[in-house]
Amino acid sequence: MSDRYASFANSGPGRAVVKRLGLPAPPRLRRYHLGDPLVPGPVLLDSAPGGRLHEPVREILKAAGIGDGGERYSALIFDASGVTDSTGLRALYDFFHPHARSLTSSGRVIVLGTPPEACDSPREATAQRALEGLTRSIGKEFGRGTTAQLVYVTPGAESAIESTVRFLLSGRSAYVSGQVIRIGPAAAVNPPADWERPLDGKIALVTGAARGIGAAIARVLARDGAQVIALDVPAAGDALAAVANDIRGTAYQLDLTTAGAPDRLADHIGGRHGRVDIVVHNAGITRDKTIARMDADRWDSVLDVNLSSQERINEILLDRGLIPDGGRLIGVASIAGIAGNRGQTNYATSKAGVIGLVRSMAPVLAERGITINAVAPGFIETRMTAKMPMMLREAGRRMNSMSQGGLPIDVAETIGWFASPASGGITGNVVRVCGQSLLGA
Amino acid sequence: MSDRYASFANSGPGRAVVKRLGLPAPPRLRRYHLGDPLVPGPVLLDSAPGGRLHEPVREILKAAGIGDGGERYSALIFDASGVTDSTGLRALYDFFHPHARSLTSSGRVIVLGTPPEACDSPREATAQRALEGLTRSIGKEFGRGTTAQLVYVTPGAESAIESTVRFLLSGRSAYVSGQVIRIGPAAAVNPPADWERPLDGKIALVTGAARGIGAAIARVLARDGAQVIALDVPAAGDALAAVANDIRGTAYQLDLTTAGAPDRLADHIGGRHGRVDIVVHNAGITRDKTIARMDADRWDSVLDVNLSSQERINEILLDRGLIPDGGRLIGVASIAGIAGNRGQTNYATSKAGVIGLVRSMAPVLAERGITINAVAPGFIETRMTAKMPMMLREAGRRMNSMSQGGLPIDVAETIGWFASPASGGITGNVVRVCGQSLLGA
Repeated sequence: MSDRYASFANSGPGRAVVKRLGLPAPPRLRRYHLGDPLVPGPVLLDSAPGGRLHEPVREILKAAGIGDGGERYSALIFDASGVTDSTGLRALYDFFHPHARSLTSSGRVIVLGTPPEACDSPREATAQRALEGLTRSIGKEFGRGTTAQLVYVTPGAESAIESTVRFLLSGRSAYVSGQVIRIGPAAAVNPPADWERPLDGKIALVTGAARGIGAAIARVLARDGAQVIALDVPAAGDALAAVANDIRGTAYQLDLTTAGAPDRLADHIGGRHGRVDIVVHNAGITRDKTIARMDADRWDSVLDVNLSSQERINEILLDRGLIPDGGRLIGVASIAGIAGNRGQTNYATSKAGVIGLVRSMAPVLAERGITINAVAPGFIETRMTAKMPMMLREAGRRMNSMSQGGLPIDVAETIGWFASPASGGITGNVVRVCGQSLLGA
Repeated sequence: MSDRYASFANSGPGRAVVKRLGLPAPPRLRRYHLGDPLVPGPVLLDSAPGGRLHEPVREILKAAGIGDGGERYSALIFDASGVTDSTGLRALYDFFHPHARSLTSSGRVIVLGTPPEACDSPREATAQRALEGLTRSIGKEFGRGTTAQLVYVTPGAESAIESTVRFLLSGRSAYVSGQVIRIGPAAAVNPPADWERPLDGKIALVTGAARGIGAAIARVLARDGAQVIALDVPAAGDALAAVANDIRGTAYQLDLTTAGAPDRLADHIGGRHGRVDIVVHNAGITRDKTIARMDADRWDSVLDVNLSSQERINEILLDRGLIPDGGRLIGVASIAGIAGNRGQTNYATSKAGVIGLVRSMAPVLAERGITINAVAPGFIETRMTAKMPMMLREAGRRMNSMSQGGLPIDVAETIGWFASPASGGITGNVVRVCGQSLLGA
């Protein structure tokens, strides 16, 4: 599970060797630790004329005590919402050209704009869509752990951006880069009393919580204040109990694929907790084979665990009113669900289905003030990736803007951002946690 | 411009060496030649219960004289429009598992479905969206020049699919794989009298036509029956004249970035031709530098040639009524516009803008019966890619499902499909011509 090459490349002698041979130099990423400031240094904010997001961002930075002086910046933020045609894109060159080199390592680039589908004219929509090409190129170009995102804010949703600006500036988004995030007007955006405990008073269910990414999710949600119901199959009971004890949560053993399991889960939640505010469908399996060699059980079990059982659980929890207003449904997709993968027709189909689930349920749930989103992990250092053939594993680790794999915590932090009561404007999003992997569709 | 490795790997001794060393074995792709049958062998067609596309496809195959007998198939087509929830996806396993190995080389896989956004329920939308993961995985898995696409057909557009089914079966789509295509109800779908001369009687404008991809586009449109206006800058006059003469078209020298050029172009078309049915915005430039090192002129010139000048030309041609009902606007985007690229902030921004242009103009133009679409080329063998550093070039050539670069003709054939009078249901699409490159977003 450890990336020995990255450790070597970051050692004193390693740094010299790596530089001399022109090898990839995976930077040490700035990750969040309790008590960290949002950013270590000042932030430069500017905008194209007529931007409506400059002022809300300025107020967020001010409230967080972030300065704007100096010659080196922790983040460059540009409000491009005022760009109404392609010639106006020049404003982005004028901002990034002189300041590109002033960004410190693990820096942050945030470009804000208007969703093309919400623009008044084709000219404006074209220019706003063009921002994607710029932001993704910056993510690939700046290096040294810099992340770059494009945040589209629907007109009217200006007050819903704080949780996202905070997430993207902080070390919580260390391995999220090259993403396009949409924020819409929210039924409710509730800034937490304490941004370090945004989930205080919330009840969260995490499936597949015994180890790996699921355990990291349970830990992060608990750290952020939630009371966590950690669920996994009975066979993982000991590991599950250890996680639950560690985070003062509760362990619940259940095989979600057995007949009646969704009902039993709903009974358990209804009887013991009364409700669940946050549901994280993390449980998932792989059964890799080319489709020509795949037996039907491999197809059925992967589709059932990764997709159909999630649909059944969502439905029963919603039907029984166990997910209150302001609820959060969160799925785990995968780059394989976006790009497809050799030997994973079953897995990729199920994960593409998770994307479909998020997109199709978002408008339905919006009526109830519930959001639904998904993360799509890229190469994450887990027991699963540790078992990959060496060459494939090395390719996965290096073929991204960070030249390294992500950690389970990176996926968990992204889920924590979706889960926040301040993230009411974020629904229907699929955000990759992949260090801007080259792979895609 | 030539892929010597692929030539070697396809030679007698080369084949042995490549196999022995486990090197990539780029297959010889089946490309279209005038008079070729749609497919060399029989096609297997099946559907999930309740599918509405099986019958229209069966009729297309029957009319084209394609058989369905035998044990080896040139294409596998599955109508998944009847799948209404994730458990129904099993039908796709049941079809592809036993038949995966019966596909001949340069085979074709086509999965048909309903666009998730047009589905009746979230369950159905989820299952239909899941098809993307399956199709893209098959594209990566089957190899030997097989292409795999997902075609979403809006209910009511069943009669608009013939040009797409024909394109995807034929050798014209040799380098198109892993794509998701949307067909909507069309104002007019006019099957040509002769499918080998679909553009008879049409007038087409191709910018940047003097060489490379532009010249290939001009040749294909002329082969398909169009009268072509080949446009390029005065400096490319000789090459342009040679192309125009060769295809019995006309050459028109114009630098589109000069003040007043769109007006002059409109005057020329209005005065000399009276109208233009097909406009292909192929002219494009690169001026690569990281944004920190990029002078303003590199930014401005790339944005202007690749994006803003296209917008101006479209507007003036439309304003003056020079593009009649049934007109076709076709742009050239790029994988860089989808995924971003280091050293290409300007180019990627402009090409992402082309995608925005297509998406935002499609609904506006639909009212006039005009379609707008774009191709997004991946690694294509041209003078531009021949100049790339060797390692980058080799990576670009091999990192796709075909283990080889595409040819300018592959881009041109895709444009020919958009241009067809039978493609009235295809608008707002961006289709990659990339052999299913691994790169994406």
